[in-house]
Amino acid sequence: MLAMGRRARAAARALALAPADTKRAALLGAAAAIRARAPEILAANEADVTAARAAGISEAVIDRLALTPARLDGVAAAVAEIAELPDPVGKVTESWERPNGLRLERVRTPLGVIGVIYESRPNVTADAGSLCLKAGNAVILRGGSDSFNSSRAIHAAMVKGITAAGLPADAIQLVPTRDRAAVGAMLGGLDGTLDVIVPRGGKSLVARVQAEARVPVFAHLEGIVHVYVDKAADAEKALAIVKNAKLRRTSVCGAAETLLVDAAARERLLAPLVTMLLDAGCAVRGDAATQAVDPRVTPASEEDWRTEYLDAVIAVKLVDGLDAAIDHIETHGSHHTDAILTEDAQAAERFLAEVDSAIVVHNASTQFADGGEFGFGGEIGIATGRMHARGPVGAEQLTSFKYRVRGTGQTRP
Amino acid sequence: MLAMGRRARAAARALALAPADTKRAALLGAAAAIRARAPEILAANEADVTAARAAGISEAVIDRLALTPARLDGVAAAVAEIAELPDPVGKVTESWERPNGLRLERVRTPLGVIGVIYESRPNVTADAGSLCLKAGNAVILRGGSDSFNSSRAIHAAMVKGITAAGLPADAIQLVPTRDRAAVGAMLGGLDGTLDVIVPRGGKSLVARVQAEARVPVFAHLEGIVHVYVDKAADAEKALAIVKNAKLRRTSVCGAAETLLVDAAARERLLAPLVTMLLDAGCAVRGDAATQAVDPRVTPASEEDWRTEYLDAVIAVKLVDGLDAAIDHIETHGSHHTDAILTEDAQAAERFLAEVDSAIVVHNASTQFADGGEFGFGGEIGIATGRMHARGPVGAEQLTSFKYRVRGTGQTRP
Repeated sequence: MLAMGRRARAAARALALAPADTKRAALLGAAAAIRARAPEILAANEADVTAARAAGISEAVIDRLALTPARLDGVAAAVAEIAELPDPVGKVTESWERPNGLRLERVRTPLGVIGVIYESRPNVTADAGSLCLKAGNAVILRGGSDSFNSSRAIHAAMVKGITAAGLPADAIQLVPTRDRAAVGAMLGGLDGTLDVIVPRGGKSLVARVQAEARVPVFAHLEGIVHVYVDKAADAEKALAIVKNAKLRRTSVCGAAETLLVDAAARERLLAPLVTMLLDAGCAVRGDAATQAVDPRVTPASEEDWRTEYLDAVIAVKLVDGLDAAIDHIETHGSHHTDAILTEDAQAAERFLAEVDSAIVVHNASTQFADGGEFGFGGEIGIATGRMHARGPVGAEQLTSFKYRVRGTGQTRP
Repeated sequence: MLAMGRRARAAARALALAPADTKRAALLGAAAAIRARAPEILAANEADVTAARAAGISEAVIDRLALTPARLDGVAAAVAEIAELPDPVGKVTESWERPNGLRLERVRTPLGVIGVIYESRPNVTADAGSLCLKAGNAVILRGGSDSFNSSRAIHAAMVKGITAAGLPADAIQLVPTRDRAAVGAMLGGLDGTLDVIVPRGGKSLVARVQAEARVPVFAHLEGIVHVYVDKAADAEKALAIVKNAKLRRTSVCGAAETLLVDAAARERLLAPLVTMLLDAGCAVRGDAATQAVDPRVTPASEEDWRTEYLDAVIAVKLVDGLDAAIDHIETHGSHHTDAILTEDAQAAERFLAEVDSAIVVHNASTQFADGGEFGFGGEIGIATGRMHARGPVGAEQLTSFKYRVRGTGQTRP
């Protein structure tokens, strides 16, 4: 593992200096190689799926693991799409001149070496590898045991593409063993060679990485996402947005988990919202006011206000206006994504300013919390930390920066 | 210590929402209070200096510790200057619209709670406290034992100023004990309440913080700063810049430590540069070519290429052109600040692109590596890491960001 780290560091240097065109060609080559090797990759995936079934792995996990020709084509398409993103490296983000004539600029540089630890989804091999390379970083991928053969086959195709473009094979390395000690070694930072770790997977993986990593981590542990329906909310918008935020897909981190309704809107909005959710097949756990709406509502416990269901379940509570809503979110939330629905511009601005979450939303679904929907062209994950990256982590947030100072002979007095 | 952390977290929330005018008034009040309490602060400092002398502390340390009326006025002036900086919080750094009509913007927010661990300079109490507050952060300061009384007196004055403006006293806390266990507690992150630690002091302090901190650290361990004199360098500029880079002040992190001279400029530049340095009172440790210039040059060992002297000593080496210079810097440097002196624009651009340091300089002194000289109005330190902050860390780099999403009822298909 330490040798992988050293090779990654050496590759990172080559990648940092690689022209934008080379990186683009490398990723287009990787996408083409994934398509060309589809039979091998699908066969490797078939072996993984068979082994997972034999081991009694749940169908939900097998669904995340299984590739079809269409899904694999989607994997290749995503790599090609990342290839065509604007290159973040070398972009001057600020420039200014000092009274002494020094010209300064701040320019994006790669971060260095990124470690990605993931579970059963083999597409992460391609997605994460491509985004890291686009931003000029070397990456060490540690996939799940279940998808070991699939990840190896996808990785081999990608390496073929990137080496054909003249980039080092070590730009994207895959830990070549199922040995669990590899994860521990990565969390230790591989002797200073890993600059950041990105965990992709369930809560237990993320919690372990956050607790044990000796290097920075880009992640979110959970998305306890709130929608606050203000007294000045438009009823029609509120019904549509709450339904979408909760039920479009219940397993994504941007799915709403708690609905807060302004007490001043109780008569007008509480019953329609709760009834709509129940009728759409969503279980509702509510406070006393919510329980009074419909006998299908079950009582919410204190625990429910801190629960990420990732399922067709929602907690509903009446709150005493904007301040109480913000207070509830700051006390129980996870700083991921939170929304206010209101036609009162002042209330909206206060919510957007005062809720300390990576993404704050006014009058739209929380399920837009996604790098693709933000226009980033891809994301390696969503971060709720405040250091370096926050919200959807796209290629740009996988960069660092440096200062260039241009003089004409200046010395400091 | 954990209670301090909790109080800081609570104060951080109030600070994050404090209007720019309030923070400005708080810092102007703090500056005024430092001036008004000058007699008490100078008396406390006198007690520290007397105790330090009695304990046999070196005069160099006592010089860093001692305040005079003029120095204390400078401390107050620096706080007032930070008060007048533009407020970084709430600044929209990017905004864009999606095809579905969603309007997105990225806006600066405070980082949270910052821990600052420093040594004998009591002015850090005021500087670091002010910069953190300007960026809307709460700060926990842990000063050195030597400056305990001075820091307490300055801190008390600042708290008077900030509370008079209506900000919480816990916005700037000073660890009220000399107990060394406090440092260990801070390095542990105070139960998740510290977001980042900034060490200010000597190499052993920084090394300990970097090795043991369980939270991100903004720091540089050392500044092994190079000046590369290219074959196309202007002789007059080179002599002036090298002299300034090495000797203006030898104790600052931006002071040059290694001079690399292009072998193609040996005849024209090596002897003049080395003679100038020797004549200016700088000890020169050189390779064989440099030793041949003057009998006063002593042989450089391998160790010298990795040494931060912080003194009137320089290591000098002939290198075989630009590539060898870059290679030497990447192998032996500390990614702090490095300069090229040349009239060849292409060579300059290659150096600025390929040297992976926080600050890269063309035709100017490396002693400009300073937040004030960059126009940041102040800095909490210079960072050589690649995460979040790099180079001079001013108020802006003490912020994080979030995304605001404004819709008109959009749901995700």
